[in-house]
Amino acid sequence: MTLKEQCARRRSVRKYSDKEVSDQLLNSLFEAAGRTQTMGNLQLYSVVVTRSEEMKKRLSPLHFCQPMVTEAPVVLTVCADFHRTVAWCECRKAEPGYSNFLSFVNAAIDALLFTQTFCNLAEEQGLGLCYLGTTVYQPEQIIETLRLPRLVMPLATLSLGWPAEEPALSDRLPVASFVHQETYHDYSASDIDRFYRAKEALPENKHFVEINAKETLAQIFTDIRYTKADNEAMSEGFLKALRRQGFLDEI
Amino acid sequence: MTLKEQCARRRSVRKYSDKEVSDQLLNSLFEAAGRTQTMGNLQLYSVVVTRSEEMKKRLSPLHFCQPMVTEAPVVLTVCADFHRTVAWCECRKAEPGYSNFLSFVNAAIDALLFTQTFCNLAEEQGLGLCYLGTTVYQPEQIIETLRLPRLVMPLATLSLGWPAEEPALSDRLPVASFVHQETYHDYSASDIDRFYRAKEALPENKHFVEINAKETLAQIFTDIRYTKADNEAMSEGFLKALRRQGFLDEI
Repeated sequence: MTLKEQCARRRSVRKYSDKEVSDQLLNSLFEAAGRTQTMGNLQLYSVVVTRSEEMKKRLSPLHFCQPMVTEAPVVLTVCADFHRTVAWCECRKAEPGYSNFLSFVNAAIDALLFTQTFCNLAEEQGLGLCYLGTTVYQPEQIIETLRLPRLVMPLATLSLGWPAEEPALSDRLPVASFVHQETYHDYSASDIDRFYRAKEALPENKHFVEINAKETLAQIFTDIRYTKADNEAMSEGFLKALRRQGFLDEI
Repeated sequence: MTLKEQCARRRSVRKYSDKEVSDQLLNSLFEAAGRTQTMGNLQLYSVVVTRSEEMKKRLSPLHFCQPMVTEAPVVLTVCADFHRTVAWCECRKAEPGYSNFLSFVNAAIDALLFTQTFCNLAEEQGLGLCYLGTTVYQPEQIIETLRLPRLVMPLATLSLGWPAEEPALSDRLPVASFVHQETYHDYSASDIDRFYRAKEALPENKHFVEINAKETLAQIFTDIRYTKADNEAMSEGFLKALRRQGFLDEI
């Protein structure tokens, strides 16, 4: 199967069989994903592998107790990492200047591109995974749990294992909704109707709106799933963690 | 060829043949890459496609005049985008709360994961590409050139075309240098020696050190390629652009 065919049938997998995910397989995927391009070929990322029951239990509440964290054989936390590069500089009479926001952005880019090649590779092997966006919600507690030093920020968590379910494919917006030619062209109300019609018409989405006594699907997102109050509180938490890790000294 | 084999021989391509990259091919890759997981399945990204000579000329200095920008048949700028989602909310009596830093982080994650699936897919088709990290160096000018509205931030630029070169493979750090079991284990001086030895021994790197009259390879990075002064100035520029685009109202 080509990657293109693999993408067409791609779904997040949240239930895993008991079959082991070997270190050998994992390392071969890390090696292949490590071929992804990075800033100055510095590979500004690191991965913490969680297999122990104890560490999974400690991570679980930091991901709002989503069951995949304790049920998956392997949990991976991918971090933006300038720490190792700075350690190298310090061993080599070089004065690093990476305690700043741009260096965080550069390392975050490296970490996320690496993460996604890893996801594509893992799925090619038949592994199932779920990307946990919760990593950036309470980063300070993840930093403490995984003992991340200065200049390391957790960004992505993957729960990983051999699939024990095959969920339905989820919908996507049409390509025309996110691609712009030459310059960005803003959306008219009729563009929005056209691009979001299919999503709004899905029975499961209509059901969400109904059981939550809302008027529109968009209100499910703004009033329940991703609220202004939560986002503002978590923005503060994330910025505080960035300061603590040394990426925001100048603000 | 599997993606794993493709990764093993992966290199950035900076020279392209005259052969056209059709809109049909591009759109089929956008559609497949659009299967990548995103926050709440909101697909918080957009892509601006640059094909016109005029727009390439305007983008070129914003990427430090790297020749790929004007020489590639297609240049793509991938953006973190909450604008479209907010437009949807506003058309649907929903009050969006996404003018904050966490929402930028969420959209940046979506944009970068999408970007890397796109890269893997494009390379599977035989296309060559170069990821331009310069996108985050002068974002305000890219925002103006591509007319990006509020809540859209450019993050990744790809120059794309059919390869007209096959550069040498670049080196990578050993897997053990970036993978940690259970918790982060800090690096001793002998770890650093072991992990960076091969990179430092490469003839091209030794040559860089020599022609720049430096003592170590790390000094090439700290003193020439990614200096503290540049990073601090560009951090300010990036934060200013985030404020302008409405993602940092609360600071």
